[in-house]
Amino acid sequence: MAKIPSTAVFSTKHFLALSLALNVSFILRMLYEGEQGHNMSCIKNETDFDTKTHSNIIKSRVVMSSSTSSLANSTCTDGKARSNRIINLDHGNPTVYGKYWRQSGDKTNIIIRGWQSMSYFTDVSNICWFLEPEFANEVMRLHRVVGNAVTGGRYVVVGTGSSQLYLAALYALSSSHAAQPINVVCAAPYYSSYPTMTDYLKSGLYKWGGDAETYEKDGPYIELVTSPNNPDGHVRTSKVNRSEGLLIHDLAYYWPQYTPMTSPADNDLSLFTLSKITGHAGTRIGWALVKDKEVAKKMTKFIELNSIGVSKDSQLRAAKILSAVSDSCEQENSQEGDSFFKFSQKLMTNRWKQLREVVNRGELFSLPQFSPAFCNFFNQVLEPQPAFVWLKCEGNVEDCESFLREHKILTRSGRHFGVSPKYVRISMLDTDENFSHFIDRLSSI
Amino acid sequence: MAKIPSTAVFSTKHFLALSLALNVSFILRMLYEGEQGHNMSCIKNETDFDTKTHSNIIKSRVVMSSSTSSLANSTCTDGKARSNRIINLDHGNPTVYGKYWRQSGDKTNIIIRGWQSMSYFTDVSNICWFLEPEFANEVMRLHRVVGNAVTGGRYVVVGTGSSQLYLAALYALSSSHAAQPINVVCAAPYYSSYPTMTDYLKSGLYKWGGDAETYEKDGPYIELVTSPNNPDGHVRTSKVNRSEGLLIHDLAYYWPQYTPMTSPADNDLSLFTLSKITGHAGTRIGWALVKDKEVAKKMTKFIELNSIGVSKDSQLRAAKILSAVSDSCEQENSQEGDSFFKFSQKLMTNRWKQLREVVNRGELFSLPQFSPAFCNFFNQVLEPQPAFVWLKCEGNVEDCESFLREHKILTRSGRHFGVSPKYVRISMLDTDENFSHFIDRLSSI
Repeated sequence: MAKIPSTAVFSTKHFLALSLALNVSFILRMLYEGEQGHNMSCIKNETDFDTKTHSNIIKSRVVMSSSTSSLANSTCTDGKARSNRIINLDHGNPTVYGKYWRQSGDKTNIIIRGWQSMSYFTDVSNICWFLEPEFANEVMRLHRVVGNAVTGGRYVVVGTGSSQLYLAALYALSSSHAAQPINVVCAAPYYSSYPTMTDYLKSGLYKWGGDAETYEKDGPYIELVTSPNNPDGHVRTSKVNRSEGLLIHDLAYYWPQYTPMTSPADNDLSLFTLSKITGHAGTRIGWALVKDKEVAKKMTKFIELNSIGVSKDSQLRAAKILSAVSDSCEQENSQEGDSFFKFSQKLMTNRWKQLREVVNRGELFSLPQFSPAFCNFFNQVLEPQPAFVWLKCEGNVEDCESFLREHKILTRSGRHFGVSPKYVRISMLDTDENFSHFIDRLSSI
Repeated sequence: MAKIPSTAVFSTKHFLALSLALNVSFILRMLYEGEQGHNMSCIKNETDFDTKTHSNIIKSRVVMSSSTSSLANSTCTDGKARSNRIINLDHGNPTVYGKYWRQSGDKTNIIIRGWQSMSYFTDVSNICWFLEPEFANEVMRLHRVVGNAVTGGRYVVVGTGSSQLYLAALYALSSSHAAQPINVVCAAPYYSSYPTMTDYLKSGLYKWGGDAETYEKDGPYIELVTSPNNPDGHVRTSKVNRSEGLLIHDLAYYWPQYTPMTSPADNDLSLFTLSKITGHAGTRIGWALVKDKEVAKKMTKFIELNSIGVSKDSQLRAAKILSAVSDSCEQENSQEGDSFFKFSQKLMTNRWKQLREVVNRGELFSLPQFSPAFCNFFNQVLEPQPAFVWLKCEGNVEDCESFLREHKILTRSGRHFGVSPKYVRISMLDTDENFSHFIDRLSSI
């Protein structure tokens, strides 16, 4: 070892410190990349969701072990592993937004102290007595910033995701004195979970009534209007359109990254969910905007009987996230970079562009066509770019799900959405890596 | 202003800094005390809970405005305000434990980063695919530390409080092919929410069957065994005791502060909730220990259809809190002070002592009598000291709830628990201040 004079500007100790610092930085970098790899690369530890049947979970489990074991025998760049890998796009887990939140740094962290938010109650003077005011304020603010819903004269009811709110709405709109359960209908293709969620408890209050397009029974009914629609992305209005209809508007996807904001929704009962806006599905937070006081009360009662309120921790976290989204919109064009919606809109534009290019290259598949519309949020004419692809197998392929499964792409058959198996629903919200695999695989078919 | 030489050891700048620091410390102290006052003093912003009827909420709302407005015209020490104040002990909001967690400092804080826990899924290889492993580990650990439940060969299913798990258990234990809904029974006095929770959706799978003591129908049934019992605190076993019975053990109160730990519960299906152990009701976390794999699967399916999983934020927070409880038990007799259970056991002993003294002084009321038993956790013979008082009005008072209401004490009538209105249930878990008001009021009757 060369001798370094002790009087030199940089002593051995200095170099040792520098070297140690470099070591630490390398170790940290390795750890960070390891973590990223674990979350976002070869091992698919976050799959995609939508309630349907128990087989989905089993299927995911098979996929998980399959992709994990393939990893054990190969590296990410191994071409064979890449082509053998099962790509699960059945569920709609919005993992794509993770990278935005990683970039956002510490400002979206939340600290909850051991003694905070311990009570069942938040504000007993509010109809929704478990609603955190911070969360309610951020919901109202975001709707104002985006312009996608009228909030004046509405009650906010918070739920454990919009699923719980959907059930709460069925309970609130049905009558416990009715001789028969009220029919719940939705135009096909409809969200695959609606029929099961409606009927799994064999309720005497409501029951699944099938496709709204062919619904002709007299008397009261509940119609679900999902707009933009899951699975096909089209903007919708009521189909049955009779005076005795009670409407639930599921507006999970009525946000700027998915569809042009043409006007603020002005409905009796609209449902929203954090999952599809920001990607925070694990937080299980949704909300309803409700015009009628008695309906808001009954929805609250449902949640009281179902789970005695909604996690305060998650409401506080959701408030922080929604606040960051609104901030990013209000600070657009400052040095903060793209707003959340600009970021996600660009991302969806890019994915849909890649997808259309691949699909249009051949004649095997077709995609839905959308009319562009003026988006009040982005101040320009834009085309919808839904969270799901509603893909049709053309020609002789009758069962599109099976056909794609042969090519190791897991999708959800049109059958589950009340239509032909020539259609499948495919998530567009998975990780960059999975989406890129999907595009490669599709172009190779 | 006196001149200070610039060469003095403490310059003007030093003093200014010192003065500013003092200012800041005073302001912080004021803020802290203000917050404490807001949470724990005159304004009763955290009331008490148990699902029952909508009137509870309305009642609480009246109480809230009453106590808030009384504050506007008086101070805390104002004797008249004190005697006029409505004391709401109808609900079972466990606010009493707040002070323990305030004392615990920062070690029970939790930080959740903006990009963490975003996925619907936690581990698709687990039956309960949304269960956080950290939470499951702490559940298992706490049961081992306390010795109140056998965990070997059990599946953990997490729920949005034990209410959601109760409904999940009904769904899991009933059959969708049965000609008739299965009867759900419980010996009176039973938890007032059971009948409403069981029947509010008019399910075709299960229905409330009333008092287990008088249940004589043939065929399968579900029996709820709440032990120690809510409302009366007695240790219970199955009452119907026939081979076709399916049991749900609600063990919300089977913890050392409430009752002696005589042996680890070894049931097919036991329910637990964070609220009643540590007081974190707002976190909405409960769990089930389930022996049968298919039952665990069906319970998970219920939660999937009901709310697509359970808040990850709250599961992580619950893990932190449970870990602190286990730590405190394992570090007992170190410099850390009392374990959580020692603290809460002392507190309950003290409250029950005060209550018995007041009640035994007159002949208007009577209390349940409990047999002491050896507690394996505290290693001594102890008497039960339940989370609720099951108070009986003696003599001519037929409606104990109305009688106490005249004295501005809100309680829950025995009627809601399937028994005589001579009984009321009163929460023992409210704040020190409310409990002290209650004792004063009771002794003045």
